[in-house]
Amino acid sequence: MPEDIRPLYTESTFHVRYAETDMMGVVHHSQYIIYMEEGRSALSRKHNIPYSELEAMGYSLALSAVKVRYHAPARYDDLVTVCAWVKAIQSRGITFGYEIVDAGSRRQLVTGITRHICVDRECRVCQMPPEWVNPLKQTMQEQMSSSQMEVE
Amino acid sequence: MPEDIRPLYTESTFHVRYAETDMMGVVHHSQYIIYMEEGRSALSRKHNIPYSELEAMGYSLALSAVKVRYHAPARYDDLVTVCAWVKAIQSRGITFGYEIVDAGSRRQLVTGITRHICVDRECRVCQMPPEWVNPLKQTMQEQMSSSQMEVE
Amino acid sequence: MPEDIRPLYTESTFHVRYAETDMMGVVHHSQYIIYMEEGRSALSRKHNIPYSELEAMGYSLALSAVKVRYHAPARYDDLVTVCAWVKAIQSRGITFGYEIVDAGSRRQLVTGITRHICVDRECRVCQMPPEWVNPLKQTMQEQMSSSQMEVE
Amino acid sequence: MPEDIRPLYTESTFHVRYAETDMMGVVHHSQYIIYMEEGRSALSRKHNIPYSELEAMGYSLALSAVKVRYHAPARYDDLVTVCAWVKAIQSRGITFGYEIVDAGSRRQLVTGITRHICVDRECRVCQMPPEWVNPLKQTMQEQMSSSQMEVE
Repeated sequence: MPEDIRPLYTESTFHVRYAETDMMGVVHHSQYIIYMEEGRSALSRKHNIPYSELEAMGYSLALSAVKVRYHAPARYDDLVTVCAWVKAIQSRGITFGYEIVDAGSRRQLVTGITRHICVDRECRVCQMPPEWVNPLKQTMQEQMSSSQMEVE
Repeated sequence: MPEDIRPLYTESTFHVRYAETDMMGVVHHSQYIIYMEEGRSALSRKHNIPYSELEAMGYSLALSAVKVRYHAPARYDDLVTVCAWVKAIQSRGITFGYEIVDAGSRRQLVTGITRHICVDRECRVCQMPPEWVNPLKQTMQEQMSSSQMEVE
Repeated sequence: MPEDIRPLYTESTFHVRYAETDMMGVVHHSQYIIYMEEGRSALSRKHNIPYSELEAMGYSLALSAVKVRYHAPARYDDLVTVCAWVKAIQSRGITFGYEIVDAGSRRQLVTGITRHICVDRECRVCQMPPEWVNPLKQTMQEQMSSSQMEVE
Repeated sequence: MPEDIRPLYTESTFHVRYAETDMMGVVHHSQYIIYMEEGRSALSRKHNIPYSELEAMGYSLALSAVKVRYHAPARYDDLVTVCAWVKAIQSRGITFGYEIVDAGSRRQLVTGITRHICVDRECRVCQMPPEWVNPLKQTMQEQMSSSQMEVE
């Protein structure tokens, strides 16, 4: 998938809280992981990802990896925007992409990905049930096609 | 001051983040202290409290006490509203009041106060400079008068 | 109970983590609530409080109130000691007391209490089951008697 | 450097705090980043890394990247051990390696790295001053040599 296509793209914007800073005077690096998770929550709300249905089928998505790159710091009371999207759907999991920017200047602060793998009730890695993941894949493909058409 | 008068009253509303929950399935009790602080930040933004001017004069407000009562729990993805106001201005400090409610039902979740005392650069407790605190007191009194007139 | 008697007294000592500081260069005030909770965990471990038995009987202890007073700040890498004890056992709940000090100098940093009330599976406030709370009360009384004898 | 050589290797062991869990009943994934940082603090204490000297020379080490892989969850009150070591020293930065294990069983829970780059007072990336980094490199090489001799 081209880098500039971001299916299920969602933005959420909020102020940096005082407690999220550290003695360097900037947002502590662990906090961006929580911002990314909040971006994922906003994505689920906006696109109606039926996660509870996956759980009702006896599966869950466990976080397996996080990668974050830090480009510039955010500070107390800054308005930041978390951009989150689905980067890839594999047979056994989903990868989300993130970009955190200053809400005003759109300056890039942090980029990252999280990988989530499907596990059953015994915590064994397994394929995501097709009846759950296929509609998600279709939405993704439709958004990618229309993005490409816009580009062409 | 009557309990129902809340000068410099400010509301801020946001979703509970996943990371803010604990293994009981509810928001961890320490997190409401951070919500209260975020309410205080929103109050400062809304009413233009010139805190940086106080610091420029060589003073700061140090947190001296927190009291919180827990009435009902908030859960992941709940939309909560933090209500913050100035409860009292003393010669050497300020007391803020807080009420955290469910944004939809307005059900009361948490109530609390924080006390802040004025300290100079040597961390000695001292009176707040009148040129800084008097305009704040005046705004407060005006709001209280108009509240009482509405009641009458 | 005299102020200087602290039944089930327990100390735990650890380093302040970098992430626990804020842009003031000191430990963020919400963090001490987590230190107090860690002190309570250490107390339960040391004195074998059978909390899981209470849960097996269908009850739990819900936090109902927190009060904290801030006397002096802790900083990054400081070694701090959390002192925790049972302050009172009421028919429907337990109150814990806390004092957080600098581990080296024993300088007082923070004092506080937490109140916990007994609730049943329907979240109704209720009396603690005597078969669970009576042994705890007895331990407490024995420790208070021996403390007083030491004083006498 | 072979994978099994871990210069400046340091272990720190502590209990999982209640507030560190989330509604899944396990330690929240962002918390391990803080555990890793605490491992780095322990390494600095143990091996006397003179970080304040670097700052006195006008430089600091800024976090530029974090990678974490999650293998198994830790739970409330678990005793966990954070293993931290220097993975590589480059001309413009340092990479640390981490392994978090269950303290009793030594079961692997989380692995990760953090990259830190040297910046000057104007936040420009620059080489680390040789008088600061060379002693560190030497310690590292000595430990690697003796490790290899043990292996041979």
